[in-house]
Amino acid sequence: MNSLPVAVDAMGGDNAPEAIVEGARMAAGEGLGVVLVGPPEQLDGSGLEVIPAHEVVGMDADPGASVRRLKDASVVRAAEAVRDGKACAMLSAGNTGAAMASALLRFGRIKGVVRPAVACLFPVPGRATPTVVLDCGANSDCVAGWLVQFARMGAVYSRAAFGTAEPRVGLLSIGEEAGKGSALVKEVFGLLEDPGWQDRAGARFVGNVEGRDLLLDCADVIVTDGFTGNVMLKTAEGVAAVIASQIIGLADSSPEARAGADLFFPALMGLYETFDPENTGGAVLLGVRGVCTISHGSSSPKAIASAIGVSHQLAAAGVVSQIADAVTG
Amino acid sequence: MNSLPVAVDAMGGDNAPEAIVEGARMAAGEGLGVVLVGPPEQLDGSGLEVIPAHEVVGMDADPGASVRRLKDASVVRAAEAVRDGKACAMLSAGNTGAAMASALLRFGRIKGVVRPAVACLFPVPGRATPTVVLDCGANSDCVAGWLVQFARMGAVYSRAAFGTAEPRVGLLSIGEEAGKGSALVKEVFGLLEDPGWQDRAGARFVGNVEGRDLLLDCADVIVTDGFTGNVMLKTAEGVAAVIASQIIGLADSSPEARAGADLFFPALMGLYETFDPENTGGAVLLGVRGVCTISHGSSSPKAIASAIGVSHQLAAAGVVSQIADAVTG
Repeated sequence: MNSLPVAVDAMGGDNAPEAIVEGARMAAGEGLGVVLVGPPEQLDGSGLEVIPAHEVVGMDADPGASVRRLKDASVVRAAEAVRDGKACAMLSAGNTGAAMASALLRFGRIKGVVRPAVACLFPVPGRATPTVVLDCGANSDCVAGWLVQFARMGAVYSRAAFGTAEPRVGLLSIGEEAGKGSALVKEVFGLLEDPGWQDRAGARFVGNVEGRDLLLDCADVIVTDGFTGNVMLKTAEGVAAVIASQIIGLADSSPEARAGADLFFPALMGLYETFDPENTGGAVLLGVRGVCTISHGSSSPKAIASAIGVSHQLAAAGVVSQIADAVTG
Repeated sequence: MNSLPVAVDAMGGDNAPEAIVEGARMAAGEGLGVVLVGPPEQLDGSGLEVIPAHEVVGMDADPGASVRRLKDASVVRAAEAVRDGKACAMLSAGNTGAAMASALLRFGRIKGVVRPAVACLFPVPGRATPTVVLDCGANSDCVAGWLVQFARMGAVYSRAAFGTAEPRVGLLSIGEEAGKGSALVKEVFGLLEDPGWQDRAGARFVGNVEGRDLLLDCADVIVTDGFTGNVMLKTAEGVAAVIASQIIGLADSSPEARAGADLFFPALMGLYETFDPENTGGAVLLGVRGVCTISHGSSSPKAIASAIGVSHQLAAAGVVSQIADAVTG
């Protein structure tokens, strides 16, 4: 789809570089352009093109300091490849903060964007397209204007990536009625209600949504501050993971359960795949001048291959230039 | 356990009064003292004692205005029964805000409590005691000192209700390290870290916890503002509910799945009961001069009976006087 490859941080992730290289090879096998970024001596056997980088930002390292100090880090070089026109997008499963900082420092912000935001996708059973939730962690303390711009960027993302003609924007709160929520939410509600804003954004404001609506078909975009969004993201993942591990454990609770599990688990696998965060293609940093996709640290090769596909798709759809048009328009 | 009965708002809840009356009768059958509050003409057939109340606050009514205007509402009269020494606790499955407002206006705040907070319980697989999370919705916009007091009240609750000798207090944030999170969280972190505070509270601060830790054994008390806490509560309930309904739907996806489900679902029911919010005994408003327990609107009779038991337990444990001692100590 794009003539340029996706620059993949080969050294980021719990199982890097093995899982990352394998995922990149899978994507390449499907005809997707990929270039690995990392130490050539570890990657040359992969059969893929390599952009050399000799340092690595640890999973727990301080993002800002690391990115400033480790100028030859794989995640930094991946961002530079996009900046320098050698790649159409960057992808990292490593230190999330370092990937965001690299993108922000090397790409720069889109003119008119006040704060870039992390957008995550949540599956909606029975609906073909996922819900875009932002901000999921880039900005802990927000003011109303930022959330309004997040809503705008989220609408562009939903339209570009999933073809949603007029995305429905919901505002995360703790009650459906207009007056419910924090002072921040009440102020944002008034701004999103404005028909002029909705016209300009090509979006429709559907009012407050609650935590329990996350996986239901009530909005295409859910907007919130980065603190609340990150808590929601991790709560959803944590609850799903605990339930999944409990269900697996139940299979050994009795001979009947074991026999039932053998018959029922194949059906259950499809559900597991729907909710597995690895399959959603990862988080995307919106508002910077390039595509930056962030995958889970525990991503499997399949998840990496899928995220490479999503990165290509976002680049081909022109999400960056569409956001640029939207925020200045 | 208590000589006084629990005053049950018979008219609050999606299936009131039928489900409430049935639950109250179950509790009475187990030897627990109960008094129903509502219109005698509807409740006299129950065989239970009735405190007359002729108005009802609707599920979607404005809480503050309703409680001020409807002085003969069942939820208001239930609060008055506690205030007047006729009941040891009040319980409502109706409008949550109205229950809180009734308790606040009729009981009053405990001296020294800046803001009452809603405490909810979350099950931890493999641990006998649940985690107390507060505030789950009473205060959308908080300052640091309030959260420190919430932590103190949560520790008292965990000790009184579950016998936790030295409750571990976690601070909800979006990263484990001390410097992570919003400005509010960083300030609270510094205050909870103080060994003097921990000594006075008889609690141990275990640092930041994340959304994904909610159902894990990492803290006995999780403290957060009422906006974030409510989003977390509803996200957890929503994700669990969607997964449960998807699993039930899968049973009809093929004959194999059906056969497997017939064998596996009995084991699954135990898990369902563990995670069913109806079985946790409901939310409790801490910081007011009386026990106020709030159940889900959709509570079954069994859930109501269980919440009546919890209300008795909290009254017998002297949670109110212990919080009073803690906040002045």
